[in-house]
Amino acid sequence: ERTYRIAVIAGDGIGTEVMPEGLKVLGRAAERFGFRLETQEFDFASAEYWTQHGRMLPEDWFQTLSGFDAIYFGAVGWPDVVPDHISLWDSLLQFRRGFDQYVNLRPVKLLPGVPGPLRGREPGDIDFLVVRENTEGEYSSIGGKMFEGTDRETVVQETVMTRTGIDRILRFAFEQAQRRSGKLTSATKSNGISITMPYWDERVAEMGEAFPEIEVDKFHIDILAAQFVLHPDWFDVVVASNLFGDILSDLGPACTGTIGVAPSANINPTGELPSLFEPVHGSAPDIAGKGIANPIGQIWAGAMMLDFLGEAQAAEAVTSAFESVLESGQTMTPDLGGSASCEELGTAIAHAV
Amino acid sequence: ERTYRIAVIAGDGIGTEVMPEGLKVLGRAAERFGFRLETQEFDFASAEYWTQHGRMLPEDWFQTLSGFDAIYFGAVGWPDVVPDHISLWDSLLQFRRGFDQYVNLRPVKLLPGVPGPLRGREPGDIDFLVVRENTEGEYSSIGGKMFEGTDRETVVQETVMTRTGIDRILRFAFEQAQRRSGKLTSATKSNGISITMPYWDERVAEMGEAFPEIEVDKFHIDILAAQFVLHPDWFDVVVASNLFGDILSDLGPACTGTIGVAPSANINPTGELPSLFEPVHGSAPDIAGKGIANPIGQIWAGAMMLDFLGEAQAAEAVTSAFESVLESGQTMTPDLGGSASCEELGTAIAHAV
Ligand SMILES: CC(C)[C@H](C(=O)O)[C@@H](O)C(=O)O
Ligand SMILES: CC(C)[C@H](C(=O)O)[C@@H](O)C(=O)O
Repeated sequence: ERTYRIAVIAGDGIGTEVMPEGLKVLGRAAERFGFRLETQEFDFASAEYWTQHGRMLPEDWFQTLSGFDAIYFGAVGWPDVVPDHISLWDSLLQFRRGFDQYVNLRPVKLLPGVPGPLRGREPGDIDFLVVRENTEGEYSSIGGKMFEGTDRETVVQETVMTRTGIDRILRFAFEQAQRRSGKLTSATKSNGISITMPYWDERVAEMGEAFPEIEVDKFHIDILAAQFVLHPDWFDVVVASNLFGDILSDLGPACTGTIGVAPSANINPTGELPSLFEPVHGSAPDIAGKGIANPIGQIWAGAMMLDFLGEAQAAEAVTSAFESVLESGQTMTPDLGGSASCEELGTAIAHAV
Repeated sequence: ERTYRIAVIAGDGIGTEVMPEGLKVLGRAAERFGFRLETQEFDFASAEYWTQHGRMLPEDWFQTLSGFDAIYFGAVGWPDVVPDHISLWDSLLQFRRGFDQYVNLRPVKLLPGVPGPLRGREPGDIDFLVVRENTEGEYSSIGGKMFEGTDRETVVQETVMTRTGIDRILRFAFEQAQRRSGKLTSATKSNGISITMPYWDERVAEMGEAFPEIEVDKFHIDILAAQFVLHPDWFDVVVASNLFGDILSDLGPACTGTIGVAPSANINPTGELPSLFEPVHGSAPDIAGKGIANPIGQIWAGAMMLDFLGEAQAAEAVTSAFESVLESGQTMTPDLGGSASCEELGTAIAHAV
C-alpha cells in the first residue's frame, strides 16, 4: 500500500477547526483510492506553544519535520498573545526558507456557489495558477539606513535575483504550463525597474527555448493587475517574482471571491525536504471558537498536497467533491450565506468524495 | 485677466486627435470663467521629430518648457519607428525627473455610461485618488550584474527612499485628504519588505502627527490590491511608493472600467517648474487616424490642469460636463458602444461646459 507520512500542524484559531475537516476528507480519499496517510500532529507554531515555551518552534523543528513527505498546515497567529510579525516570521517563514520551498503555488478559480465580484463571469471562465518565487527577489535582508534622524535620512534595500533562483521557478512554471494549456504569462516591469526585471525577461526568453511548444507572453505588473480584473479569462499559468507573485496571488482570488477558501502550496519540487500546504486565510480570531469557519481552504490545500504526492486522481476527486457540494448549495457555512457548521460542510464534502 | 501659459505637446497617434478636443473644451471653460489660456504648440516628443532629428527632444527642452505654467500632453510612442523604451524614457520620463514632478496623481471614479467590470457598483460608489511618489523608491538606477554568464549570475537593484522624498509626497497626500473626506490609506508591505517599507510606515506615522484630524489606515499591497476589487468604496486618498503607486493607479481605473479615459497628473507642487497633465492611454496605433478615439482622457487631464492652476470652479465645470454627456449617452465614441467621432464627443462636451 502506498503510504505518505504527513506532519499535521493545526496552529491557532480556526486552524484547529478546519484541520479535522481537512483530515476527514483526505482520509476518505485515501480509502477510496487505496493509499495510506500516516499523520502525526504537532502543537508548535501556535500561540499556546509560544505561551508555554517562549518561542514558536522547538529547537529541533528542522530535524523533526524533515523526514515527512509533506506538512499539512492550518493557520498561525493570535495577535492578543504574540505579535503577527513574530508568529509568522518565526514559524511559517522559517519553514519556507528552511525547507527551501521555492515555489508558492495558488490556484485562482471561479467556483459554483461562491459569489465573485466580477460582472458576467461564470464558473469555468476563470481558472488559472499563480506561480510565485518564494525565496529571493524583493524580499531580501540586505540594506540599511544612513544619516539617521537628519533631513538626509536615506534607506536602501536591495532586490537580489540569481540565475539559479529564477531558472528553477521558471522551469517549474513552464512544466505546469505543459500539464495545462501550454500558455505561460510572465509578470515583469522591465520598462521601469531597469536592472532586475530586464534580467528576469532574459531568463524567461532563454528558458522558453527549452520549451518551444509553450506560448509565452509577458505583461508589466501594472497592466497585468488591471487585466486580472478586466480579462481574467486570458490567463492559465502566471509566473512572477516574490513581490509580484505576492500581489497577484491575493488579487487573483479577490477577483473570484475566493480569498476565504483559496489554498496555497509552498513547494520544494526536489522532494528532498517537505513541502507545506495551507489555506490562504488566517486564524480569524473574530469567528474562532464558533464552529462556523469554512473548511474549504483547508480541504482544497489537502487536494493540492495529494496532487503533489502523486495522487492526482484522488486530488481531482476532492476538488470535484467540494465543487459539487458548493453547486448544490445545500450545505453552506455562514460566509456563503448558509447556516451549516464547519463540521457539517466537511462531512458533506467527505461523503461526496 | 488671469492668464496661464500652457505648453501643448500632442505627440503621436491619437494624441494628435484628442488634443484639439481637449483644447476646445478648455477654451470654452476659460471663456465662461473669465481667464485666458495662452497656448504654444511643440512638435517634439513624437516619432516624427525623432525621424527628423534623431532624438526625442531638442537640446534646450528644459529652458524652452520651464517658463510655462503647465504642460498639456497627449500621448507619445510609435513602435514601428522608435522603440517604446526610447520614446518614453527620452521624453515623458525626462520631464518627470527634470521638472521634479514628484507627485503622480490619478483619480479613480466610476462614471455614468462607462461600463465597469465590478458587479453591483453604481456611479458615486467609487471615487478616490491614487497619489504616487514619482521620482525615487523602486525605480532606481543603482545596481548591477555579477558572475555574468555563469550559474552564479546575480543581479541586484537597490530601492532607495529618502526622508525628503517620502515626506513631500506624504504631505501632498495628507493635504489632498484634508480637501476631501479626511481619510488617508497608505500602501505598505512592511511585513515582507523589511527595511524600506517599515521606514515608509514610520514616516506616515510621524506625518500623521502633523495632521491629527486625518484618519490614517494602512494595508499591505497584496491585500490592498484585493480590496480595490472587493471594497473600492472604502478608499478616498491612497498614497503609495513609486512601484506600488504604478500598480494601484492602473488597477484602480481597471476596477471602474476607465482605463481608456483616465487622466494622470505629474505635479511639482512648488510651482517653480511646470507640471504635466496627460491621459493615461497611449498613442493607440491600432485606431490612430480614424478619428474615433475617445477624447475624455485628454479632457479630464485638462480639468486636473485647471484645478492645479487654481481654477477649481472651471475644473469642476469640465468634469460635470463630460459626466453629463456620458450620462445622457447620446454622443458616445465606439469604445463606449456609440458611433460618434472624437470631434463630435469633444464638441458635445464643450457645449455642456
Ligand atoms: C512606461 C512606464 C515606465 C511608466 C511607469 O511605470 O512609470 C508607466 O507605467 C506609467 O505609469 O506612467
Ligand atoms: C505575511 C507575509 C510576509 C506573507 C508574504 O508576503 O509572503 C503573506 O502575505 C503571504 O503571501 O503568505
